[in-house]
Amino acid sequence: MASPELRKDVVTGRWVVFSTARSKRPSDFKSKSPSGSGNSNSQNCPFCVGNEHLCAPQIFRVPPDPSSEWKIRVIENLYPALDRNLRQRDAQGEESPEVLAGFGFHDVVIEGPAHGVRLSDQSPREVGDVLIAFRTRIKELAAVEEIKYVQVFKNHGASAGASLSHPHCQMIALPIVPPNVSTRLDSMKDHFRQTRQCALCEAPSNKLVINESTHFVSFVPFAATYPFEIWITPRIHSSHFHEIDEDKAADLGSLLKLMLQKISVQLEDPPFNFMIQTTPLRATTSELPYAHWFLQIVPQLSVVGGFELGSGCYINPIFPEDAAELLREVNAS
Amino acid sequence: MASPELRKDVVTGRWVVFSTARSKRPSDFKSKSPSGSGNSNSQNCPFCVGNEHLCAPQIFRVPPDPSSEWKIRVIENLYPALDRNLRQRDAQGEESPEVLAGFGFHDVVIEGPAHGVRLSDQSPREVGDVLIAFRTRIKELAAVEEIKYVQVFKNHGASAGASLSHPHCQMIALPIVPPNVSTRLDSMKDHFRQTRQCALCEAPSNKLVINESTHFVSFVPFAATYPFEIWITPRIHSSHFHEIDEDKAADLGSLLKLMLQKISVQLEDPPFNFMIQTTPLRATTSELPYAHWFLQIVPQLSVVGGFELGSGCYINPIFPEDAAELLREVNAS
Ligand SMILES: Nc1ncnc2c1ncn2[C@@H]1O[C@H](COP(=O)(O)OP(=O)(O)O[C@H]2O[C@H](CO)[C@@H](O)[C@H](O)[C@H]2O)[C@@H](O)[C@H]1O
Ligand SMILES: Nc1ncnc2c1ncn2[C@@H]1O[C@H](COP(=O)(O)OP(=O)(O)O[C@H]2O[C@H](CO)[C@@H](O)[C@H](O)[C@H]2O)[C@@H](O)[C@H]1O
Repeated sequence: MASPELRKDVVTGRWVVFSTARSKRPSDFKSKSPSGSGNSNSQNCPFCVGNEHLCAPQIFRVPPDPSSEWKIRVIENLYPALDRNLRQRDAQGEESPEVLAGFGFHDVVIEGPAHGVRLSDQSPREVGDVLIAFRTRIKELAAVEEIKYVQVFKNHGASAGASLSHPHCQMIALPIVPPNVSTRLDSMKDHFRQTRQCALCEAPSNKLVINESTHFVSFVPFAATYPFEIWITPRIHSSHFHEIDEDKAADLGSLLKLMLQKISVQLEDPPFNFMIQTTPLRATTSELPYAHWFLQIVPQLSVVGGFELGSGCYINPIFPEDAAELLREVNAS
Repeated sequence: MASPELRKDVVTGRWVVFSTARSKRPSDFKSKSPSGSGNSNSQNCPFCVGNEHLCAPQIFRVPPDPSSEWKIRVIENLYPALDRNLRQRDAQGEESPEVLAGFGFHDVVIEGPAHGVRLSDQSPREVGDVLIAFRTRIKELAAVEEIKYVQVFKNHGASAGASLSHPHCQMIALPIVPPNVSTRLDSMKDHFRQTRQCALCEAPSNKLVINESTHFVSFVPFAATYPFEIWITPRIHSSHFHEIDEDKAADLGSLLKLMLQKISVQLEDPPFNFMIQTTPLRATTSELPYAHWFLQIVPQLSVVGGFELGSGCYINPIFPEDAAELLREVNAS
């Protein structure tokens, strides 16, 4: 099997990860149904307690003491997009600046031992513990010199890309700063130059706010790309997600739980993704004043068509203030 | 119903089209099945011959003579993303540079009168006639001062976004240059500065070529974003698709037909999109030397997940040279 490789297209300017290992991964979704209920049977699920031997190696577990049951496991992805053993110096065939060896890390964070317990079913503190597991792993990855960015993401439901239904997140550590991140930094820099303000330190308009907690606010962004898209931002300026402490993680855990419950009630248990949008690990001190991390939640309600693929411009059928109002009012408990 | 609006997010830097009209459109796909066979029954299909009264107004038809049967109809989209009657000067509430009234055009090109006849079933000359219909309409739209770019695209199959199965394409004329287009131009400009060559005038490596015709070449791009993605480029430098003449359109028609047949055979009739990637209508003369149009075909074989949504970086499980080899060898006729 060929080693993974990153290639940059000179026309689109985009880096793409090529990984043949990915095509081998199994799926427990019979059909790509929108609800994506998947395999409720945990017998063959590699992520269930008791099936640890079916998994790729463990990186760490929470709690660490092996005599107690685990609550969270961070493991290697068995079908990784990038190869953690492939150092740049070993790589062959890098004859051009448009090719990089596919070195990087691809991990899975199993959110709990039970197949049927979702993140939003867990307590705020437990959700916070999953966030702290991300933090711990990001700090380890940040120690690897070649790693420029760590993308944390969750796929829930087959139409949101999930191939396994046991609650989990993933983390991909990249040797490049990905395109959305550099575009975002450029855009926030422009705003900072013009206003001397970080774009995410300004409080969102009341019409767009959904809920608030001690340290965080959740809202629909003014130009939301997707219907019912939600952002959760720390109120106090913070560039890197992995600066979060235990208190703030539990507080974010409660707001994240509430948002997941709200979209589940309002939108009838939709497939969704969430992503942590943070700042490159090796950002310069001049970038930090306008780089502000956030958590982005995207319910998957429509299919992307040729217009979006071609232009990169999205059509959203609901105005953000209307989506925010619906989400503010929904009763989730 | 609120008028459509364009908004730019200061964090992502992206323009988004908000249009509540879009949520009203019907779908003849019972379920979002991957194959997306849709409604084979043409009784209620607004695009079928005999049902013209169910459609939004016609813009033009081919042939123009109303005493003969039509072969192609270009009509207004009944549920448009942008409003052709909303001039910028009439728009309310544009208090910031991040808001634009949703003025623009959204048209449908019905490729033929029969529900079951696909574009790839038509003769090369007939496919060329559809391409000439795009050209004619783009030239009309280019005459409207506020229009900066026209995105031509096709959705085939429910998972590629199609809501109606009768063979058709769409055209959206925008008052902005969309993000993918400006990023592409920037990237091609960089390449031009470094090499004094247009990135798409250089012939693709033989390993990536699928087929060639007199005026065009089809290939898998070196850093293809999607598995089995295909680009068709004119061999001789040309910035704007709408510069095409009848001969070249028929020649492109034959190569496009062949590519659609090949993906249908090799990938078992997948849902797909194609997009015309052209140059902004009001490009400057300094941009023209490195701006080269192409037609992009994307079979929809996988679901986008949180990694791609978050980072903008894609994972492709097949190397372009392997995809090209498979497509070169497949026997389509
Ligand atoms: N025994 C085992 N031990 C360890 N790991 C195991 C394992 N068995 C399976 N895995 C891994 O578990 C992961 C489950 O992940 P998800 O269900 O979130 O989506 P997946 O990564 O498959 O693809 C979705 O997300 C990616 C990234 O967004 C998209 O590229 C893709 O199209 C979309 O379907 C897979 O990556 C798989 O490789
Ligand atoms: N009687 C009538 N007269 C005229 N027009 C009529 C009509 N009845 C329906 N229409 C229009 O016909 C079009 C059919 O288009 P497609 O099947 O290619 O996909 P659609 O635009 O619905 O959405 C897909 O493409 C868009 C753009 O890529 C994505 O935003 C979206 O998510 C995806 O599902 C629709 O736009 C609809 O508004």
